[in-house]
Amino acid sequence: MSVGLEFPSSLVPIKGVRLASTSANIYSNKRNDLLLIELDKGTVTSAVFTRNIFCAAPVKIAKENVNNFKPRYLLINSGNANAGTGEKGIIHAKSTCQSLATITGCKMSQILPFSTGVIGEDLPVEKINQSLPELVNKLSNDAWLEAAQAIMTTDTIPKAISRQVILNGVDINLTGIAKGAGMIKPNMATMLSFIATDANISKEALDIAIANAVNKSFNRITIDGDTSTNDACAIFATGKAKNNLIDNCNSDDFIEFERAVINICCDLAQAIVRDGEGATKFISIEVSKGKDQDECLGVAYKIAESPLVKTAFTASDPNWGRILAAIGNSGINDLNINNVSVYLDDVCIVDNGERSKTYTEESGKKVMVQEEIKLSVNLNRGACKEEIWTTDLSHEYITINAEYRT
Amino acid sequence: MSVGLEFPSSLVPIKGVRLASTSANIYSNKRNDLLLIELDKGTVTSAVFTRNIFCAAPVKIAKENVNNFKPRYLLINSGNANAGTGEKGIIHAKSTCQSLATITGCKMSQILPFSTGVIGEDLPVEKINQSLPELVNKLSNDAWLEAAQAIMTTDTIPKAISRQVILNGVDINLTGIAKGAGMIKPNMATMLSFIATDANISKEALDIAIANAVNKSFNRITIDGDTSTNDACAIFATGKAKNNLIDNCNSDDFIEFERAVINICCDLAQAIVRDGEGATKFISIEVSKGKDQDECLGVAYKIAESPLVKTAFTASDPNWGRILAAIGNSGINDLNINNVSVYLDDVCIVDNGERSKTYTEESGKKVMVQEEIKLSVNLNRGACKEEIWTTDLSHEYITINAEYRT
Repeated sequence: MSVGLEFPSSLVPIKGVRLASTSANIYSNKRNDLLLIELDKGTVTSAVFTRNIFCAAPVKIAKENVNNFKPRYLLINSGNANAGTGEKGIIHAKSTCQSLATITGCKMSQILPFSTGVIGEDLPVEKINQSLPELVNKLSNDAWLEAAQAIMTTDTIPKAISRQVILNGVDINLTGIAKGAGMIKPNMATMLSFIATDANISKEALDIAIANAVNKSFNRITIDGDTSTNDACAIFATGKAKNNLIDNCNSDDFIEFERAVINICCDLAQAIVRDGEGATKFISIEVSKGKDQDECLGVAYKIAESPLVKTAFTASDPNWGRILAAIGNSGINDLNINNVSVYLDDVCIVDNGERSKTYTEESGKKVMVQEEIKLSVNLNRGACKEEIWTTDLSHEYITINAEYRT
Repeated sequence: MSVGLEFPSSLVPIKGVRLASTSANIYSNKRNDLLLIELDKGTVTSAVFTRNIFCAAPVKIAKENVNNFKPRYLLINSGNANAGTGEKGIIHAKSTCQSLATITGCKMSQILPFSTGVIGEDLPVEKINQSLPELVNKLSNDAWLEAAQAIMTTDTIPKAISRQVILNGVDINLTGIAKGAGMIKPNMATMLSFIATDANISKEALDIAIANAVNKSFNRITIDGDTSTNDACAIFATGKAKNNLIDNCNSDDFIEFERAVINICCDLAQAIVRDGEGATKFISIEVSKGKDQDECLGVAYKIAESPLVKTAFTASDPNWGRILAAIGNSGINDLNINNVSVYLDDVCIVDNGERSKTYTEESGKKVMVQEEIKLSVNLNRGACKEEIWTTDLSHEYITINAEYRT
């Protein structure tokens, strides 16, 4: 089940990027679960990773390699997170990198490994290594849809988007993929997202663009409040568009390019929410007129992660008392509740801290039955505004997560 | 459904305390929903209340009255929280207090009102006021079980316990009731709990005893991480046991008495968890060898409130990777994961930050299928230890909360 999400179409190949995916039999029911991405020489790569202390072995390796070496390959498996696997996990991930380096002739440090799936099980190194020659042979420019499918876990629909931006008359293309579904409250990036562009941009400028974009997209979503051990988002710029080098973060080109990265990241982040485990609703929560970003996000996440608010959304029940209770729990000790107002789309449900005089149960219900809902909270005490995206909490979520491993 | 919880029996009346309950037709399906508790003159009362900023109208009134006046009556309704009701809510609560004061001849300020139920609906003042004469006529010493039943909302079983303690040869009795079920992460007290004792104790000493007891009991439970707008716990000491006045917090008598209060509060708090909405498991989470209380509780609550950990418990699935991910998300940035160990009862599942060499899936499963499970996390970096209690997250929770109002 997903909310307002269409199967990807019209994906634009990115010059200098080739992909291949296959089944390495990591999943017991055969499906593609291994993805290789090849980057042309000269490609600039930036990445951000989970802040979960128990970060996975591949995250540790990729973190080190992305900034110290020039990545040529990304090797990504689903079905196994290679997290909670200690020193052995590092050895396993490095073993797959070494095999790929031998086949392709690049250095081991030029490979970024990524994993997603069950935590705590040993990475099936042999299965992965045996699949590498086939992957290298299959590399092609237009395998983006298959790539998006190979990294899925409990996702019900692949997530892939292309965007274009014109810089000084030069067409710049961006194509990105992502996977999500559960354990989603990225604290740096989402589960996994990979974005390619043919833009010509410096490493420093790309680092800044992706950090800003992630902060406005993947760091603004929550499905269940659980930050994964494997979150990662990487962007690679091949430079094949031959635009003038973007290396000044104050230039118009940078601002235009960054906007395109933000847009594609927001679309992918929202796609993850729309396909969240058990999602029946897509909910935008905007908290405005807060004193600062922290308090706006604090209120927004408290609402978004309240099981009671989430189940009220599932039931299409305008049980706004639960929203008030969540606001009241968000830790703003000097909040004057008499100034707080709450809207469901355009319907004012709470005004001056109590039920609005114009509010009727029918008008609230009319919004709540929709698949897409905007919940706005006005704190009336500052100038800051933040928006995040989340889902409801349905029986399907319980079913998926009580049965995922067993 | 509740876990290991028996119907209350052998409730001991407390001299100086009379109770009566009835149906004021607040619930559409007729059941007792209004409780009156009468305290003899000279009774000393202490109470602690929710820290939710959107606290309910009765909380505001009771908070003021309990410390400034000598309470003679507690008037408690279920089915309506009188929260999110603004100034009107205060007027409504005061109106019921005024009616009761007129009938009983006490001052309005000597009445403590409490409400629990749906947030945001007007208190049915007329219905309550019409029931007061009947309640006053029915007051009796041994109506504790009916009292526990009258304050239930989605609770499936009434919660009431009696305890005895002997101070210098004098028998001291305590009888307490509580209600819980959902929106349970007390940040001061639980939804509602009332404890009576015949002990002779000063107001100051009673304040300290209940504050300490609540901190070790109701402030150590979570069902869904949502702190209610109406949490309150009150204790009243009638002095009828005629023990020597307890007024020194360093005395043996105080320490003995406080221990009895802690015990009854822990039993009531655990009863709330055992009857948590949709609960199929009762889970104790102990975090030891942390640097301080904050980090022990931070880790414990992060695990207890992770929807992924909770659904793994529902499925009896020893999916320990989710537990590691929760620990990794708890905000201890300098945690050395190589020192962390995790146990399910006596089974070591994680040692030195990775799966224990002695661990087998079968041994984990054997613990997970139990109704009562102890999960222990050793951080190995300090001397602090904390324990909290929680439930799993089942389909029943979703059903209850998607249907509670509709």
